[in-house]
Amino acid sequence: MNSGETHPQAWVSALTETTDVGIRVRGYDLLELIGTVPFTSVVHLLYTGELPTRTAAKLLDALMVASIDHGPGTPSVLTARTAASGGASFQSASAAGLLAMGQFHAAAVEDAMDAIRTVAASTAAGMESGDAAAEVVADRRRDGRRVSGFGHRQHTERDPRAGRLFSMARELGVGGAHIDATLALEIAVAKSVGRPLPINIDAVYAAILAEIGFPAELANAVFIASRMTGVMAHVAEELGTMPPMRRIDPVAHRYGGPPARTVPTGGSE
Amino acid sequence: MNSGETHPQAWVSALTETTDVGIRVRGYDLLELIGTVPFTSVVHLLYTGELPTRTAAKLLDALMVASIDHGPGTPSVLTARTAASGGASFQSASAAGLLAMGQFHAAAVEDAMDAIRTVAASTAAGMESGDAAAEVVADRRRDGRRVSGFGHRQHTERDPRAGRLFSMARELGVGGAHIDATLALEIAVAKSVGRPLPINIDAVYAAILAEIGFPAELANAVFIASRMTGVMAHVAEELGTMPPMRRIDPVAHRYGGPPARTVPTGGSE
Amino acid sequence: MNSGETHPQAWVSALTETTDVGIRVRGYDLLELIGTVPFTSVVHLLYTGELPTRTAAKLLDALMVASIDHGPGTPSVLTARTAASGGASFQSASAAGLLAMGQFHAAAVEDAMDAIRTVAASTAAGMESGDAAAEVVADRRRDGRRVSGFGHRQHTERDPRAGRLFSMARELGVGGAHIDATLALEIAVAKSVGRPLPINIDAVYAAILAEIGFPAELANAVFIASRMTGVMAHVAEELGTMPPMRRIDPVAHRYGGPPARTVPTGGSE
Amino acid sequence: MNSGETHPQAWVSALTETTDVGIRVRGYDLLELIGTVPFTSVVHLLYTGELPTRTAAKLLDALMVASIDHGPGTPSVLTARTAASGGASFQSASAAGLLAMGQFHAAAVEDAMDAIRTVAASTAAGMESGDAAAEVVADRRRDGRRVSGFGHRQHTERDPRAGRLFSMARELGVGGAHIDATLALEIAVAKSVGRPLPINIDAVYAAILAEIGFPAELANAVFIASRMTGVMAHVAEELGTMPPMRRIDPVAHRYGGPPARTVPTGGSE
Repeated sequence: MNSGETHPQAWVSALTETTDVGIRVRGYDLLELIGTVPFTSVVHLLYTGELPTRTAAKLLDALMVASIDHGPGTPSVLTARTAASGGASFQSASAAGLLAMGQFHAAAVEDAMDAIRTVAASTAAGMESGDAAAEVVADRRRDGRRVSGFGHRQHTERDPRAGRLFSMARELGVGGAHIDATLALEIAVAKSVGRPLPINIDAVYAAILAEIGFPAELANAVFIASRMTGVMAHVAEELGTMPPMRRIDPVAHRYGGPPARTVPTGGSE
Repeated sequence: MNSGETHPQAWVSALTETTDVGIRVRGYDLLELIGTVPFTSVVHLLYTGELPTRTAAKLLDALMVASIDHGPGTPSVLTARTAASGGASFQSASAAGLLAMGQFHAAAVEDAMDAIRTVAASTAAGMESGDAAAEVVADRRRDGRRVSGFGHRQHTERDPRAGRLFSMARELGVGGAHIDATLALEIAVAKSVGRPLPINIDAVYAAILAEIGFPAELANAVFIASRMTGVMAHVAEELGTMPPMRRIDPVAHRYGGPPARTVPTGGSE
Repeated sequence: MNSGETHPQAWVSALTETTDVGIRVRGYDLLELIGTVPFTSVVHLLYTGELPTRTAAKLLDALMVASIDHGPGTPSVLTARTAASGGASFQSASAAGLLAMGQFHAAAVEDAMDAIRTVAASTAAGMESGDAAAEVVADRRRDGRRVSGFGHRQHTERDPRAGRLFSMARELGVGGAHIDATLALEIAVAKSVGRPLPINIDAVYAAILAEIGFPAELANAVFIASRMTGVMAHVAEELGTMPPMRRIDPVAHRYGGPPARTVPTGGSE
Repeated sequence: MNSGETHPQAWVSALTETTDVGIRVRGYDLLELIGTVPFTSVVHLLYTGELPTRTAAKLLDALMVASIDHGPGTPSVLTARTAASGGASFQSASAAGLLAMGQFHAAAVEDAMDAIRTVAASTAAGMESGDAAAEVVADRRRDGRRVSGFGHRQHTERDPRAGRLFSMARELGVGGAHIDATLALEIAVAKSVGRPLPINIDAVYAAILAEIGFPAELANAVFIASRMTGVMAHVAEELGTMPPMRRIDPVAHRYGGPPARTVPTGGSE
């Protein structure tokens, strides 16, 4: 032992048990989960401790699809591609992209969720939702903080993903209190800053995850897990098709993939 | 301009198109994909350019479930937890975990796939699979390289995930040439090193991804995407439940989550 | 252009000018600096905009020596070694080590400096230093925050580096107000928590850097620059002398280098 | 214990010994080194096991000055700034910058040193240096590899730092065999590719470090240690003076710091 320190005690994790003969995730045999439960539902299991309801499973999967990629102009993709172009390995460039996910981009869901849950709780206690939202915005303003999840550099109208996901949630019969709180916050934020700052993907995530009772401290993780699959696609494209040490313009890029097409009936089959 | 350099030209990406009003992934409207195509099938779309067949979709989803977590003792989890314990943020600790995924752990699928495809090609050309596998092992040995995907510190018998996934693939009617090549390689590797080095999760990934025609340069990305969801669960657990600056023993840890239980009939519902 | 965005304007950096024929750091020709000004003084130039005085140069160099390494048991070294052992490249493992430097370890100088400067300012305005320190500790306690720079897992007596650096600073004739403020804070912290939490390397850094008028926002950078040289020594040792995928015990390690010896008279000559 | 694994044995590091009362680096008491031995000489001690000679100390310090920063357009700085702009913390953005240092940029010294040492060894054995260099270039070409350390995007004439450092080394009386080998390689590379690819900072590092007998496996570490101080200056500037989520043009930037000035006589005093 160095310096006379005593040895640490065994420590406990509640996630996954591995033995010589098997693996159990939150108590379920991994071999039983494989082929039976979809990947995003196993993410739910790992993150919350329980398998999702049918509604939660559909919404979580839909969210992860919604945020998978936002093209080459995001900070995480530009960071990852610049690193790859300088000679970083696949994993290094991908990790650089993950590091670019901060408070302004890709890691703002937890903060938005906190604001949304506060509004929803006040409304549940009898307060009018507009008043509750205005109070949250004013409280944060006093502390010099903004509410995450509103406004986007490119989608100056409401993010196209918001309407689709909110409709889907309502069709699946969620309570709706957190979606309503999010819409109230959108109005309160606009009043506070004097111009519309529409709901962006962070607030959409926050609203839907709140509807399905997801823990706030793992909300950013879901977004990051989804977006990292996109970042890695960009890293592979950069390493596979671009010359090294190129100057990567953050704006002057264009799409050059397959032309617009329609999802075949029956989904991915 | 600094130093008289001319401005870079617009560059092209074939992945995702974003405009003020919409987002298209490989030509498909993201709003159509949401709620219709499962997340792991959209990963297939983003990585290969096409939606998967029904068989490929099932196998890709099953693979991502199989590798989601392997408990607290993997290098990536220990790296991420140690960073988190030292004061790293959620993203920083997660990125540190990603950086630990290298040739010995979590990023060996591409290399295994290369060996498997070589054996399968030789077999298709009429060679006996045992001879083809022995040749690949010998060729690599001459260059001082081993074949990735065989042997595991803990699962000294065959990895429990291998049998489940190979059975599932055969039930779904895949050709099987790459699974056969992998089994032949397992025998050839054992002969070469003089003791059994059973198929591990990297070789399982490589075999199944080869069966569904997946590009090798994105094979590691699928594994990493899956495993990063697990790493983030550990980071959240470390930050949420453990004291900072603790000594993290790499071996003396135990499972303390829900007891063994059975997946409800009908999967996650 | 994607999405009709206009091109960004040229942006300005005040650090280094590079042209086809030369490089200037903060206005000085790099070729003139090479061989004339020591490395740590060029760090001072780059970080503050000016070359250091003789006293500042000596103290900055001494600080960077003091923090260069703290053996194998720090979170940054354990993180970096664990990543390297899992297969990370030299740079990836080093970056993982950097990510482990957070609020509890290696990135607490700025915060300590803020507390020290507050105490020194109150004292300069006529307040008794003990009262000023007690006030800072109480203010932070009210906000649920502690003062960084006090207490150490291993050096439960005062960090041996503190006395050496404070003596050196006084011999070089610095004002001493920030060292005094740091000593006053050590007493106030002990009173507040009810047991001694001696000055650690973070507070030493903060005190000395405050004495030489260093900008707080670059104080952590100096520590990190110094410690990263140490982390990289550990990564090289791990990659060069250890088997891959080993279990790295955080406590059961011992020193096995050259035996205790004395610096030759005349320093490094 | 998880899974019946036995506990790892104590492991050994030859770098730094820490006890409750002191710290020794490679056997020297850190308190003795502080204020006596310059930082870059302690880096030499940590990396090689011994304090440098006077000549080695001067050259190592000069190298670390030479590579401290190359302005805003390097991949590492652009990666770090893009990450910072997206919301990364100081350490995260700096780590992202480190990840961008790969084979094309900032981590090519070891490879150049290998080529230089081969040429110098052949020359020492009686071969003509031009022939020895041509052979190394040809050998690598056969394997599809280039010799690192030659050519630069911006300095299309010889890097201004090369002449200064080579002159300094000769004035200090180094043997010169590795500098000669580097000059021979420059000619051989130009002949092989059909156009001049002048010595860049990587080859300068490699030549000088070979002259002072530095271990190749830590050569990149010296460069990275130096350049990381520069990257952190850029991260601090980005976080302190720039708006978040800005579009960072990789070319359209200009210097806006102090005007050209001369180092005062007597160095940094």
